[in-house]
Order: sequence, then C-alpha cells, then structure tokens
Amino acid sequence: MVRVVDELDLDADGATLTAALTDIASVSGEEKPLADAIERVLTRLPHLAVDRFGNTLIARTSLGLPERVVLAGHIDTVPHAGNFPSSFDPERTRLTGCGTSDMKSGVAVQLRLASGLRAPSRDVTYVFYECEEVDVARNGLYRLSRSDPSLLGGDFAVLLEPSGGAVEGGCQGTLRATVTATGARAHTARSWMGRNAIHEAGAILELLRAWVARRPVVDGLEYHGGLNAVAISGGVAGNVVPDSCVVTVNYRFAPDRSAAEAEEYIRSLFSSWEVSVLDVAGGALPGLSAPAAAAFVAAVGGTPRAKLGWTDVARFAELGIPAVNYGPGIPETAHTSGEYVEVAAIAECESRLRAWLS
Amino acid sequence: MVRVVDELDLDADGATLTAALTDIASVSGEEKPLADAIERVLTRLPHLAVDRFGNTLIARTSLGLPERVVLAGHIDTVPHAGNFPSSFDPERTRLTGCGTSDMKSGVAVQLRLASGLRAPSRDVTYVFYECEEVDVARNGLYRLSRSDPSLLGGDFAVLLEPSGGAVEGGCQGTLRATVTATGARAHTARSWMGRNAIHEAGAILELLRAWVARRPVVDGLEYHGGLNAVAISGGVAGNVVPDSCVVTVNYRFAPDRSAAEAEEYIRSLFSSWEVSVLDVAGGALPGLSAPAAAAFVAAVGGTPRAKLGWTDVARFAELGIPAVNYGPGIPETAHTSGEYVEVAAIAECESRLRAWLS
Repeated sequence: MVRVVDELDLDADGATLTAALTDIASVSGEEKPLADAIERVLTRLPHLAVDRFGNTLIARTSLGLPERVVLAGHIDTVPHAGNFPSSFDPERTRLTGCGTSDMKSGVAVQLRLASGLRAPSRDVTYVFYECEEVDVARNGLYRLSRSDPSLLGGDFAVLLEPSGGAVEGGCQGTLRATVTATGARAHTARSWMGRNAIHEAGAILELLRAWVARRPVVDGLEYHGGLNAVAISGGVAGNVVPDSCVVTVNYRFAPDRSAAEAEEYIRSLFSSWEVSVLDVAGGALPGLSAPAAAAFVAAVGGTPRAKLGWTDVARFAELGIPAVNYGPGIPETAHTSGEYVEVAAIAECESRLRAWLS
Repeated sequence: MVRVVDELDLDADGATLTAALTDIASVSGEEKPLADAIERVLTRLPHLAVDRFGNTLIARTSLGLPERVVLAGHIDTVPHAGNFPSSFDPERTRLTGCGTSDMKSGVAVQLRLASGLRAPSRDVTYVFYECEEVDVARNGLYRLSRSDPSLLGGDFAVLLEPSGGAVEGGCQGTLRATVTATGARAHTARSWMGRNAIHEAGAILELLRAWVARRPVVDGLEYHGGLNAVAISGGVAGNVVPDSCVVTVNYRFAPDRSAAEAEEYIRSLFSSWEVSVLDVAGGALPGLSAPAAAAFVAAVGGTPRAKLGWTDVARFAELGIPAVNYGPGIPETAHTSGEYVEVAAIAECESRLRAWLS
C-alpha cells in the first residue's frame, strides 16, 4: 500500500520532513501534488513573498540587506525503481527511497531554513523547481532564467544537489544525441536479401563499450567524463529484417570542454552513422576563487571537490552569479534503486547553512 | 492521395484485380475492409457456400466429386514501407506495392478461379484468412484448424504464397524469443557505479552478426536457415544507466529440425542471457512423394524447390493433408520496400491452376 502524505510539517526534524517529501511522488512532469504541498506551507510564512510559475515556487525575504543569496533545489525525481515510498532502517540512521538523496533531503533543508530563519544575515531567495531530470527545455529554473531572470538575482547561489556534505565546484556538461544505424528491410526467411540495422548497431555498442573516459584536472579539481547508451529502439515486425535502429547516448563532459566542442566530439566519434543532437547543456568551471564562493567555503568548511553531475550551477553561471553545489544527499546513490541518504547528514547540512545565514 | 477502392471486379484480369486488392490496405489486424470486400463478391457467386470467421472467409463448391482440394491464401500484409498504394510500370509488366507478391497476387488468382470455375474437376475449398504475418495465435488458418478443422478437410492443399511460379515443397520453421541483457542502474554522471545493459547487449548483437546459417538438403531440396534481431528496446531515462535491454530474435530453421530442437538450440546459443520463447511453429518436410503432391507437380510442371519462408503448409501437414506452395509472387521481394510482382506470372499461375482443375 502506498502511503498518502499531502501535508508537510516544517517543525519536524529534517529527516522526517525528507521522508514526507519523498512520499509525495514527483517524477518529472508530475510534480503538481508536491508543488501544491510546498506552496501551502510557504504561503503560511509571513516573512516570505511567494510566487509560482507552473510547478516552480520562489519564496523571498525582503529585508533590504546588502547581500542576497539564492538557495535552489529541484523537486522532481527520476522514475521509481521499486524504491517508493521511503523507509528508515531500524536504527533510523538512513532513509532509503527514490529521491531521498537527489534531492528531497536538500529540499527539506531549504524548507527548514525558510521556516526557521525569520531574520537571516543576508536576504534569501528560495527556489523549488520542476523538471530538472528531463529535457533542458522543461527545466523550471531554465524557464525562469528566460522569463523572469530578475527573480533569480543575487550575489551567490547554493544548489542543494547531493554533494555528500562537501562543497562541489562547477559541474560537468551533458549532451544527448541519437545515433542511427540503417539497413535494408527483407523477410527474415531470406534475411540475406536485406541488411539488419539492429545487427549494424552492434558496432555502435562496441564503440561505447571500448570508450575510455577523460579525467581532466580543472582549477585543481578532477572531473570524470562518461558516455552511455540511455535508450535503444528498433524493429518493424516479428518477421522483418529491420532497416533502422536508434541508439540514444548521453555524453557527460568536464567543464574544460564547451558545449560546442562536445557536440563536435560526438559527431566525430560517431561519424559512421547519422547523428542528431537532442539537447546539450554546457558545464560550469569551478569558480571557487570568486570572493563570494571562497567566503562560503570558509564558512561551511571542508575540502571542495569536482561536481560530476550536471547541475543548474551552470544556469547561475550563465546569469553571472557565482554558485556551488552543497547538499546532504549522496551523489553516488542518485538514480539507483538503492538510493538513500544519511539522517545525520541532513541535520549537519542544515546546521552549517543556518550558521552561515544567522 | 490514397486511392479509395472498395469494390472488387472479378471479371478484370488478374493483375488489375491484384492492384485493387493491394490498394485496400490490410496490415495484420486491420483486414476488415478487405475481408468485407471479398465477402461481398463471394456471396454473389451462387455455386459457392460462404462462411466467415472474424476476417477469415471460406467458400466451397459442393458438387459431390470424389476429390476435394483446398486453395488457401492470407489477406494481410506487413506494415507499409512507403510502398502504398500500388503502381504499374509504364509498360505494365510489373506491379509494385506492399503485398503485391506476398500475397495479393495469389489471392487474386484464388478469386478469379472461384468466380470462373463453376464446374471444376475436383471440389474446391477457397480459404482467405487473416493475420498470417503476426503471432501464430492470431493466424486465421490456425484458429480455424482448432475451431472447425472439418471445414479445411481435403485430399490436397495449395497455398498461393509467393513461389515465383515454381512448386515449393515443405517450409522452414520459425521461432521468436526475447534475449535479455541485464545491468545495474546508475546516474549517467557517474556511470562507472552501474553496468549498462544496452552496452552488454552488444555481445548479443556480435553473436548475431557472426552467426552462420546451416543449409541442409532435405528430400533433395536445399533449405537455408536464418537468425535475426527483429526488435530491440532498452532505456529508463535520459540520464540513467539502464539495467535491462531486450533483443527479440527470429530464428528460421530447416524442417530437418523439430520445433523442440529449435528451442533447445536457441536456449543453448544464448545461454549467457535470459531467454524467453515467444512463439514457435515447426516447419514441414517437403512431402513431394505423396501421390496427390506428385500429381499436382506433374500437372503444373517445373522443378520443385525448397520453401524458405514459414507458410501454413505446416498447418495442413498437422491436419494430415499433403500441401505445397505455388503462387505468382516473388518471394525474394516479400517484406521489402521494393516489393513487386510480374504481371505475366499472375496470368500464368491462374492458367495452370485452371487447367489442373478443369
């Protein structure tokens, strides 16, 4: 039986709130129930002005302080993988479930700060946005950066993406493209009259299996690229040699390579086939030498490392706002069926951000 | 613009009738308009008793003759491939279009004989059936052989499948199975945490590309097996390393191998993966030494050869009725976008069958 949770209690501890957020399903495109629940609690907080765009919410203090910071997080998840709803282990040290790390725990920290910090040391803009896990064109933060960029203005931004409690600088870019193998149809009873496009696609998969990732060091942080088939499809009928097979690949690239360079690389790598680029989002250089970033790193402590996932840090970089990733989730578990978050990490992240903003 | 043809003229020549039949689309599962049109013309022929089961039609003479023969053909086609409607070449020697060879030209010959042979030398049962190009369970002849086998009774059967005007003996068996590669999900930004099932499926495709067909000689006729991927699918989301990739294969095997042996062979060949057999239909031995088959071959002439496609000859073999393939279509063009039939071959086939039955 699936638990039905539709009211959020911001006075509960961060882990309890994370569980409640996790148990309101919000696979990309289906965030409305969760956005509604978040809107209900935010509009009860008198020190915040709340705006809504689709399933994206912005809540802001307006205290006239000399600095404004942005705390942002996406509210969607990848599709469930037998890991919904969430569950605590018996000792309550760990919460398992789809989105616990990526990034309902970060959203829980945002909400706890939004509720508790009535008089922060800097004006704060909280952003809760939709569709981060899908096409860039649907991304709530991207859309807002195009329609109302002034709402995202600030001196520094923190994305509460899973970073294992470390400050993660920059982010890798991501590109998706289809690579199409072609053939010639024939009846399978005389398949030698045709050319099987699915068999031809074997060469694409061989190339993917043999591919070796670059691991460049950029501004002192080591990145690690990736190239994966994320979908494959082909076939006409059960007795027809198929004439087309489409492999969708996702290329992750370190921020020393631009979006244009990444596209050129993929077209060259798969030059034997028809390549169609579906979407591409450039990465962001670490930028930890910017004064605002350095001040934040000093306040929360720890040793910065490279962010391997693409995050909307790149979006803030485009707007000229220094930004880092800093959140309680464990990036290595994101998008896996065993996704979990450590309970202690949620409180730790909240406490450090609260200290920085108090 | 697609021509709309819904009335059939059985007095037109066989090629014109083939074009009319081709231009009533009848992709498997969508045969109703064509079955309706055939039913309308058959029920106007007073010497025939007509029965309908779904989109399958049976028309029989009942002259009390000592021999009864069955002329059977399927009315469905594979999906169109930019080859609908049909077209004649300027010299009108060739008709191109989806189903012209497989097997609207054979159906045209059946209809011309049904209309013209008011007093045949043998009682004749004409069968026009649905869903030959898809799962065995939907095959109209298969269903009839289970529900009303007595309607299919006879001393000899001719399937008007494309055989290039030659008598083709026996048929190859066909088996479909899924072969599943598995992996472990991970975020594509750290793909080394998972195992990409689509990449793993590359080994299945390699095996298919390297596979070499057996070409056994059975009862003097040479067969030629085949093994093809006919579908492939996999993928979870654009940023997830997928944990499953399913390859559907179609195995065509000579009639010296039973359905059970074919299944065992495929399970053994793909023993590194999970194999699930979707359907299997055994072949049929040539059986040209049976008296009725030998008499037919003598009457229509030519040198018999092996039938490579699976045909419902095997269905008649199950019912204990000797059967051969003999039709005007060109099997090598079946299921290709360039499918065509020679106009002269349609008249030739009709003329030889008419002589045999007069």
